[in-house]
Amino acid sequence: MPKSFSLKLAHAQRSADSLLCVGLDPDPAKLPQDIGRDTSGGLDTSSLYAFNRRIVDATYDIAAAYKPQIAFYSALGAEQQLVDSIRYIRERAPAALVILDAKRSDIGNTAEAYAREAFDRYGADAVTVNPYMGEDSVRPFLARPDRGAILLCRTSNPGAKDFQDLLIDGVPLYHRVAEHAVTQWNEHANLMLVVGATFPREMAQLRQAHPDVSFLVPGIGAQGGDLDATLDAGLDARGAGLLISASRSIIYAGGGAADAIREAAENLRLAINQRRANRMN
Amino acid sequence: MPKSFSLKLAHAQRSADSLLCVGLDPDPAKLPQDIGRDTSGGLDTSSLYAFNRRIVDATYDIAAAYKPQIAFYSALGAEQQLVDSIRYIRERAPAALVILDAKRSDIGNTAEAYAREAFDRYGADAVTVNPYMGEDSVRPFLARPDRGAILLCRTSNPGAKDFQDLLIDGVPLYHRVAEHAVTQWNEHANLMLVVGATFPREMAQLRQAHPDVSFLVPGIGAQGGDLDATLDAGLDARGAGLLISASRSIIYAGGGAADAIREAAENLRLAINQRRANRMN
Repeated sequence: MPKSFSLKLAHAQRSADSLLCVGLDPDPAKLPQDIGRDTSGGLDTSSLYAFNRRIVDATYDIAAAYKPQIAFYSALGAEQQLVDSIRYIRERAPAALVILDAKRSDIGNTAEAYAREAFDRYGADAVTVNPYMGEDSVRPFLARPDRGAILLCRTSNPGAKDFQDLLIDGVPLYHRVAEHAVTQWNEHANLMLVVGATFPREMAQLRQAHPDVSFLVPGIGAQGGDLDATLDAGLDARGAGLLISASRSIIYAGGGAADAIREAAENLRLAINQRRANRMN
Repeated sequence: MPKSFSLKLAHAQRSADSLLCVGLDPDPAKLPQDIGRDTSGGLDTSSLYAFNRRIVDATYDIAAAYKPQIAFYSALGAEQQLVDSIRYIRERAPAALVILDAKRSDIGNTAEAYAREAFDRYGADAVTVNPYMGEDSVRPFLARPDRGAILLCRTSNPGAKDFQDLLIDGVPLYHRVAEHAVTQWNEHANLMLVVGATFPREMAQLRQAHPDVSFLVPGIGAQGGDLDATLDAGLDARGAGLLISASRSIIYAGGGAADAIREAAENLRLAINQRRANRMN
């Protein structure tokens, strides 16, 4: 029987002694000079794979997870580079989780097709999912105990407040989403929540309500979230329960040079682990 | 200057004298016998294109729009068949709209990549978009006056009630979504709303609140929505303002034979037009 998603997550974090999730969001306009930037309008998409290989080589032993954002591949017709990159992660960092950041959602039979895209075509361990369409749009992503669905809850972007913060009987929508999903859809304990680092108070409330659910946390780095406040708010009783995701601040460090990528990733991992150690003492 | 999205929509409806939108959702297990069904587990993806060509040939003069559901292509790695199918629609039905049903949503810079996927890679006229992440996740899809964003509002699936119907100060979330989007994000008049046919009373309220916004209406056909109730609730003052979407009930009619596809599409178009004519008299 394949390992359950929650065991895979714990194993990934322990193997690398890390809560770090590295985002693989290669922007053609920002690729390192020596790999090949898109200046003429004609990008050689194989440079996406070359860049990802460099990132994985620089971080394979210190990342708990890799999170490719599928939009950066599908905008360019570079699906094969995404497949190749995931295969490379499996070879180089066999314990690391692969999270397909796709924010999928649709009615039941279509959601099943999206689940096949994420889990069979790309072989991802987990996929990000949007809750707006409700139960039948999310269930297909939770049906496999060895794969996870990471549901958008309180996101890190400015527009998050437009609807997620609306109050229903005094409770914000994102709390209702978390409550509903955790209590009704999580038989396999393979549900995670996306909770942005830009709102530590909200994260603390969610942690209190859901002590055993892991959060994927974007918003550290380029988006300006406070790391220590995030960890104090979000760590669970075991000093885990989080995957801290960073993309631009790591992969474009020093213009995308391998040494600078490793240094940025290692610094973030160590800063996280220092705070974890302080809290557990 | 390219034609505005709202002019393209009106032209498409007038050219075909139709409010019909045909969904191109080719399920490998349901392809017509003579085109090639996936029985061995090894589908020749070119059969998706062959099936779509048959559907377009059977409906090119009576469909206002075609709506490929991208999940059915991306699950199979059949992006090229989607590109080919859209090119064929442009040749055969130059006035028809192409709506990429993708339900995309993400933070600003990623949403821009998704907009390039829909509008540049696939050349779609419009794309379906999920509102949960708010303004910056939707804006990139509304930035081009000649392209449209079709925002999920009240969807047709069973799970829609889980969050969309929650009351904020007595007003359901989906009303708040519509109100916010129509009043604040619609400078180019290129916003449409997804409003499921399975809830005619809700549709009537949305029509009253937004007399000039067009609705994309799934839920007729396989999902069991009532056509006449839907039209009475959703038609605007000019007897338009709707695109009635049907997929499975048309493309698999008679096992997917060309004559049966045309008959199912033509019957639905005529039933719609009959009700429109009755209402305008």
